[in-house]
Amino acid sequence: SAQSTVTLFGVLDASITRLSSDTANNTGMSNGELSSSRLGFRGVEDLGGGLKAGFWLEGSVGVDNGGSSYRFDRRSTVSLMGNFGEVRLGRDKLASYLNIESFDPFGDIGVGGNGLNNMLGSATGAEGTAEGSHPKRSSNIISYVSPNMGGFHGQLQYSFGERPSNQGNSDRGNAVTGRLGYKAGALEVAGGYAQITGGSDTIKETYKAYNLGASYNFGMIKPMLLLASERGAGRRVDAWTLGAIAPVGAAGEIRVAFTQFNNKTVDDADTYKLAAGYVHKLSKRTSLYGMIARVNNDDNATRGFATSSSALANPISAGDSATGYSIGVRHLF
Amino acid sequence: SAQSTVTLFGVLDASITRLSSDTANNTGMSNGELSSSRLGFRGVEDLGGGLKAGFWLEGSVGVDNGGSSYRFDRRSTVSLMGNFGEVRLGRDKLASYLNIESFDPFGDIGVGGNGLNNMLGSATGAEGTAEGSHPKRSSNIISYVSPNMGGFHGQLQYSFGERPSNQGNSDRGNAVTGRLGYKAGALEVAGGYAQITGGSDTIKETYKAYNLGASYNFGMIKPMLLLASERGAGRRVDAWTLGAIAPVGAAGEIRVAFTQFNNKTVDDADTYKLAAGYVHKLSKRTSLYGMIARVNNDDNATRGFATSSSALANPISAGDSATGYSIGVRHLF
Amino acid sequence: SAQSTVTLFGVLDASITRLSSDTANNTGMSNGELSSSRLGFRGVEDLGGGLKAGFWLEGSVGVDNGGSSYRFDRRSTVSLMGNFGEVRLGRDKLASYLNIESFDPFGDIGVGGNGLNNMLGSATGAEGTAEGSHPKRSSNIISYVSPNMGGFHGQLQYSFGERPSNQGNSDRGNAVTGRLGYKAGALEVAGGYAQITGGSDTIKETYKAYNLGASYNFGMIKPMLLLASERGAGRRVDAWTLGAIAPVGAAGEIRVAFTQFNNKTVDDADTYKLAAGYVHKLSKRTSLYGMIARVNNDDNATRGFATSSSALANPISAGDSATGYSIGVRHLF
Repeated sequence: SAQSTVTLFGVLDASITRLSSDTANNTGMSNGELSSSRLGFRGVEDLGGGLKAGFWLEGSVGVDNGGSSYRFDRRSTVSLMGNFGEVRLGRDKLASYLNIESFDPFGDIGVGGNGLNNMLGSATGAEGTAEGSHPKRSSNIISYVSPNMGGFHGQLQYSFGERPSNQGNSDRGNAVTGRLGYKAGALEVAGGYAQITGGSDTIKETYKAYNLGASYNFGMIKPMLLLASERGAGRRVDAWTLGAIAPVGAAGEIRVAFTQFNNKTVDDADTYKLAAGYVHKLSKRTSLYGMIARVNNDDNATRGFATSSSALANPISAGDSATGYSIGVRHLF
Repeated sequence: SAQSTVTLFGVLDASITRLSSDTANNTGMSNGELSSSRLGFRGVEDLGGGLKAGFWLEGSVGVDNGGSSYRFDRRSTVSLMGNFGEVRLGRDKLASYLNIESFDPFGDIGVGGNGLNNMLGSATGAEGTAEGSHPKRSSNIISYVSPNMGGFHGQLQYSFGERPSNQGNSDRGNAVTGRLGYKAGALEVAGGYAQITGGSDTIKETYKAYNLGASYNFGMIKPMLLLASERGAGRRVDAWTLGAIAPVGAAGEIRVAFTQFNNKTVDDADTYKLAAGYVHKLSKRTSLYGMIARVNNDDNATRGFATSSSALANPISAGDSATGYSIGVRHLF
Repeated sequence: SAQSTVTLFGVLDASITRLSSDTANNTGMSNGELSSSRLGFRGVEDLGGGLKAGFWLEGSVGVDNGGSSYRFDRRSTVSLMGNFGEVRLGRDKLASYLNIESFDPFGDIGVGGNGLNNMLGSATGAEGTAEGSHPKRSSNIISYVSPNMGGFHGQLQYSFGERPSNQGNSDRGNAVTGRLGYKAGALEVAGGYAQITGGSDTIKETYKAYNLGASYNFGMIKPMLLLASERGAGRRVDAWTLGAIAPVGAAGEIRVAFTQFNNKTVDDADTYKLAAGYVHKLSKRTSLYGMIARVNNDDNATRGFATSSSALANPISAGDSATGYSIGVRHLF
């Protein structure tokens, strides 16, 4: 238990952010517009014979208000790793979610983020699921992560809902997710699938999420495309994001993205989103950024921004258009 | 305040665990079956002249779900140490509880743990106490820990209930606990006593806990015996655990334990528990393990397992028999 | 993200404390009588060209009971620093509050602390404010800290209340605070001002806090004077603290303070407080201390002690006199 076995790491990302809709506007301090603020502890132990053990504890930090209560909500895992890959136990990101953030130039967070997680609903909107119809993370996951096999890589997860057998529909909260990808040179392609069980005591619902992402780094620009669909409980939402990241000089980077949500169940409930941002690196660890995003909702849609400040709520009514602006600083440690 | 004064340490212990009773079963991920998962910060300062100051902050970690909110629930103390021993202030384990975990091959946790703490009740079951009739820990403790005196060692604690004097029965929550032990060569013996004040505004109840443990390390096997009794509020439970730890080869270890709870107040409310486990060390810091335990309850008893996963509840009805299985990994850092 | 970029630091301060009033008394363990107990993580990155980036995460610790839930309630900021000074974003102490603690020999905490924050009310007593009429800290602050300019230094802050524009009185929770000081040789003088918006949906209230402090270090004694006033919502409280810190030998220090609260709105609601303490350094990092304070309330005043132990409440009725005693240990790391 010497200290040298533990690496402390984190991100603090704070910004002045303004959200403005047809209904209202709000200006304040946002947390994690470029990267989610966090504090973590991790380490790897060499067990010999190519085998390693590792742990990872990572919790959200609210840089704007100190957070509500620190816990390892982002990741808490213990792993065994070797040539065979990695077996990982604990709370972690869903394998199928990794594509949502990887193929969004804004990483599914902040005013620019596409917001393609939990499209059918959170834990309340998607009854009986642990954290929603296709959440970012889940608890009680046993995960297998493959090694790189000639550019191909995969991940398979099972998440326990932990309902006792004498409850009705005791499969609720269980989830199976997977991801398969290929990365070689400038090309990256990956697909994900999740099957999440929900419903009530008497009716079982299965929420299915599909996604496919691709990017190609031309050097002067890296375009990316993401297709995502969620289906379950008689509902369906499809969405896609087309975006790009382009370096500007040695320290700058432009990000743009266009996202469309297509509600296949409810009429006139689509949403269109256009986002642009500029990131300027003061060093490898510290960046300044500015972002702007515009959301247009159909008459029955109320989508806003993936801004994580708890206080700086989205004051958005059905059918509103809205604009989000953010300028801030991100510091890695 | 240089970083070298602080040692980071911890345990992550995750397992796939199945609990199965006459009423229901539940399979999921459990937290801390071999050792309780934790993250801590501690340090010692040499004050010169044989005097030292020390601090210890240690909080539970839920590796399965990231925990609910990190706090220093396991230990938060500041100490002065010297040839005279140690004076310690803060939240800590009860001195009398140390025997319960030391002389149980399963350390009073997990499916195999004997569960000899709070036998008369938790804070709700043992009215007016801070955390139960004989809890693992208490807040507001001033503690004296003796040095080793020719094999003998002792510890004495007072815990403040902090009730204002204008409340009825304002002694509630106060506790006095002590431990006296002898350890030399292969032999270890220790006894503990706790007196914890509870009750209502008008009636004072005193909960008394007695325990005595002994172990002898024969090398090829280390048998241990633990006797424990709790008395108070007109109730009494006696219990004993007979167990052993035996090395198997260079890296293996077998653990077995038999525990009987004898409810002296309620008829037909005894419980019998048999537990066996195997621990395999991949290194000094990383182990794999498998455990199995069987509980038999008399018609009026509902004892289950000391499994700490909040979600993976014990679905046990009065008179049930139950079996717990666990396979997992423990990583120290 | 190498570990060397992060400094771990903290304070653990525990004491046996007795509070005794005309109504009741209570003896127990207190947390942070000399310095507030805390655990923190901070770091500075050199960006070149005189520019630096820094982060600071610091959370309260309850050494007596392990705390309720660790979070970065004391400070969570990210900064850019240079010859121009510092721009800081996040949760922080109010600039105007810094004088309250700096010019009180007991630092506005513990039985001896003057308690000159939130004199008109906490968030409930000062309706519509984020954390009270003049709290220690606020969230969502953008702050400018000047460099030292020939002994002069200043700080300016804006704190966002983050109320959406479609709420009535949406300025609620906003705050502007400032501090201007001069420090040269033995002399230190500083003044602070805060303007905090509160009120209901329909009525806007502005809480204003003024303070001025001065100290002069004569070597054998350092006297200090603090004047503070809060006005708002038709109420006004004035207060002053006259105190001194004097070294005794190489390791000792005596602290004394007299404080008067003058309620300008309610008749017969003034409070007088006299405090004395002795601090003995065992090392630079570890101190023992003893403190005693006496509070005299007019018939309509109920002021008690700034003791932070949640359980060890102040059992004080209107018009009570009260005495607080504390002996304890403080350890810095």
